[in-house]
Amino acid sequence: MSIDALQRVPPCSARAVELDEGDVLVIVDPEGEQVSDLVAFARDDTREYLSSGRSIDYASRLFLTTGDLLYSNRSRPMFEIIEDDCGRHDFTLTPCSKDTFEIIYGETEGRPGCEGNLAHALAPYDIGVDRIPIAFNVFMHVAVDADTGRLEVRPPRSKPGDRIRLRARMPLVAALTACSAGQSNNFRYKPIDYTVERAAG
Amino acid sequence: MSIDALQRVPPCSARAVELDEGDVLVIVDPEGEQVSDLVAFARDDTREYLSSGRSIDYASRLFLTTGDLLYSNRSRPMFEIIEDDCGRHDFTLTPCSKDTFEIIYGETEGRPGCEGNLAHALAPYDIGVDRIPIAFNVFMHVAVDADTGRLEVRPPRSKPGDRIRLRARMPLVAALTACSAGQSNNFRYKPIDYTVERAAG
Repeated sequence: MSIDALQRVPPCSARAVELDEGDVLVIVDPEGEQVSDLVAFARDDTREYLSSGRSIDYASRLFLTTGDLLYSNRSRPMFEIIEDDCGRHDFTLTPCSKDTFEIIYGETEGRPGCEGNLAHALAPYDIGVDRIPIAFNVFMHVAVDADTGRLEVRPPRSKPGDRIRLRARMPLVAALTACSAGQSNNFRYKPIDYTVERAAG
Repeated sequence: MSIDALQRVPPCSARAVELDEGDVLVIVDPEGEQVSDLVAFARDDTREYLSSGRSIDYASRLFLTTGDLLYSNRSRPMFEIIEDDCGRHDFTLTPCSKDTFEIIYGETEGRPGCEGNLAHALAPYDIGVDRIPIAFNVFMHVAVDADTGRLEVRPPRSKPGDRIRLRARMPLVAALTACSAGQSNNFRYKPIDYTVERAAG
């Protein structure tokens, strides 16, 4: 096994990373209270993508953590969560976007948001913005009211240095962000760090 | 305004229906306790589809009902719920599929499930199975535990004759099922009825 050099996703941006089967993607919140939207596609056929609906259905749970599998739309395991310091993530909301900022925040500067940043990072793989699905929103804390279904985005529970480790179960191209939405990171736009533990080499 | 003849979706199948802007799709549960998975695509460009993540985010609520908008992945309103007798639907789970039956129920007969039935109904529009997203699961009752996130599929709250009316906000091709998953309909596989109130004609 070898470990890639630690990479930094600068605030309000995204990076793509290729993973082989068995590689472990490690996502670190270096300063605490930051969210990283994670999406993934099968490298062999990018029509196969990480599916929140399949993953939640098979776990019968909204909140996924160590031991849980993240499935593709074709019901094949894409990731296994093998370590999770934080324990609370979201898998229901689409990445923030230009429209999110306008509709929810009344902001009209046209910032691309995580959606635009993910599409930019995935452009070399010919994956356009229409194909950015609901992300696995790492460290995102969304409280749910069981009676009304009301959702409340709270500051993440992640502390400085908290990490999550996800083992790839097939060859993937993944992309991850340092989130651009103020509500998600307590209005402090911070970086996200990541590395890959390579199964081969 | 004119009203189409009432159509029946036979048990464990799906139908596609074209809607113009202003048309109202009426989905009826004729016998009670049945679920209908609804998906929709913009007729002008089917890369634009009904998005659970966008809709839930903008409503800040998991459970949508009268007055709520259902958004596309491009953050444009596709439907407005204008009447809702039942009041409880799900928008987190992907349609049941051959794999669902195998993974959750241990069933190996290879029934296509709502996913396969929706893809079959949408084949004339060149929309394949990989593009069937999380559906608006009409009448589906999924209870959520706010602490653990645990999901429990319960029998629908819909009584015989309960209906939901959705006004199309753009030209759409929609598809809807009579659900094939036992857990969703209390293990009684029933039909679903629908009609369209046409804005023009």
